[in-house]
Amino acid sequence: MANKPIIVLVRPQLGENIGKAARAMLNFGITEMRIVNPRDGWPNPSAGPAAAGADIVLDQAKIFETTAEAVADCEHVYATTVRKRGVTKPVVGADGAARLMHRHSGRHAVLFGREASGLETEDVALARHILTVPINPEFGSLNLAQAVILIAYEWSRIGREMAESDLVQPTAEDETLPPAPQDDLEGLIAHLEGMLAPKGYFLPSDREEATKRTLRSVLTKPGWNHLEVRTLRGVLSSLARPDKG
Amino acid sequence: MANKPIIVLVRPQLGENIGKAARAMLNFGITEMRIVNPRDGWPNPSAGPAAAGADIVLDQAKIFETTAEAVADCEHVYATTVRKRGVTKPVVGADGAARLMHRHSGRHAVLFGREASGLETEDVALARHILTVPINPEFGSLNLAQAVILIAYEWSRIGREMAESDLVQPTAEDETLPPAPQDDLEGLIAHLEGMLAPKGYFLPSDREEATKRTLRSVLTKPGWNHLEVRTLRGVLSSLARPDKG
Repeated sequence: MANKPIIVLVRPQLGENIGKAARAMLNFGITEMRIVNPRDGWPNPSAGPAAAGADIVLDQAKIFETTAEAVADCEHVYATTVRKRGVTKPVVGADGAARLMHRHSGRHAVLFGREASGLETEDVALARHILTVPINPEFGSLNLAQAVILIAYEWSRIGREMAESDLVQPTAEDETLPPAPQDDLEGLIAHLEGMLAPKGYFLPSDREEATKRTLRSVLTKPGWNHLEVRTLRGVLSSLARPDKG
Repeated sequence: MANKPIIVLVRPQLGENIGKAARAMLNFGITEMRIVNPRDGWPNPSAGPAAAGADIVLDQAKIFETTAEAVADCEHVYATTVRKRGVTKPVVGADGAARLMHRHSGRHAVLFGREASGLETEDVALARHILTVPINPEFGSLNLAQAVILIAYEWSRIGREMAESDLVQPTAEDETLPPAPQDDLEGLIAHLEGMLAPKGYFLPSDREEATKRTLRSVLTKPGWNHLEVRTLRGVLSSLARPDKG
């Protein structure tokens, strides 16, 4: 099966949980793990025993300083949250996300927040989709490895389901280009922010963060491909030029 | 949702795993646990802490001497095994089992074997269905709580899917605001074109039409809502201003 998701653990606390997540992944053949700024450093001696043999996942895990760096080369980013946050992004379940992974080419990264507190707002801002599993409103207590295994299970199940059905035909979306890598999008956002700052767009400064988040959200939603991003970079460069003639 | 499965742990070894299974169940609102001949007796002091608050499941758990007694009042019995055994029983996945639970009235019991060795042949013999989750043939390492959570998740997911299937449901996208009226979008495009023209962006003029088409295409794709269009109009107005200070 193609298009395996990349599991991104954002600021995880316990090495044991990293190991358990690796074990959960490998049960369904998913091997690519990225770790953002693990609290106890890396490698972590507690991770190996908890992985119960899934050493290949831990050995190949890559470490990043920031979430943005971890997903820089990813065309599709999902933020897992228990509750739907007050953000206007499409919400999908584990099954819906798995369908997107199998239907759309490009790298799919799934972000998981730290054990106690989940993802930060700025991590969620990087994602085009919110991934949420509806759980018991009176007892929501999914741990990290359990959340990972549900995603891995659905990726595997939906892949078989689609392979077995004769409906696996390229959809209209497949014929278009995938979204640009996250890095391209970051370049566009930085370019625009750099032009807006001297105009006072981000004033008053106590609103700057919220204003930037709104702008990022508007520019993340389209899923522009690399040609479209390039077009928009050209638009910005033109706007910065003095008038002709 | 009706017809919650009964989770039957057959000869479990560690109290901690019983607690984790209870936690997994309650995440999806499943509360009825039965335990066959637990190795370390019952109650088990290690179970409570591992249940992380799912005490209601442990408090109501019933203990049986044999598997046959534990499922005596159940109309439907499923035996979970990693490998398909050489038995002539229908094999279902977690999703297939969940469909059966929601479609067929009566009590549905799902048997889980002990951690190390799984179910005995005589336990499997009690079941009408084999329940198996296809996992990585080179790394099959589902622990008890993970196996339980996959069943619980599918029971919950399929229940929602079946409840929704007869209705016209809003999709994830429908929960967010609809795209702005075309007129709003035209205003945005005209605004941007008006700013780009004096910069020479549409030169040479024999390319003007194609360039405008590309730009329109990039701005149409997102399906921005009216708030997002308003944000972008503000961005353009800011860019047109002279620098501050």
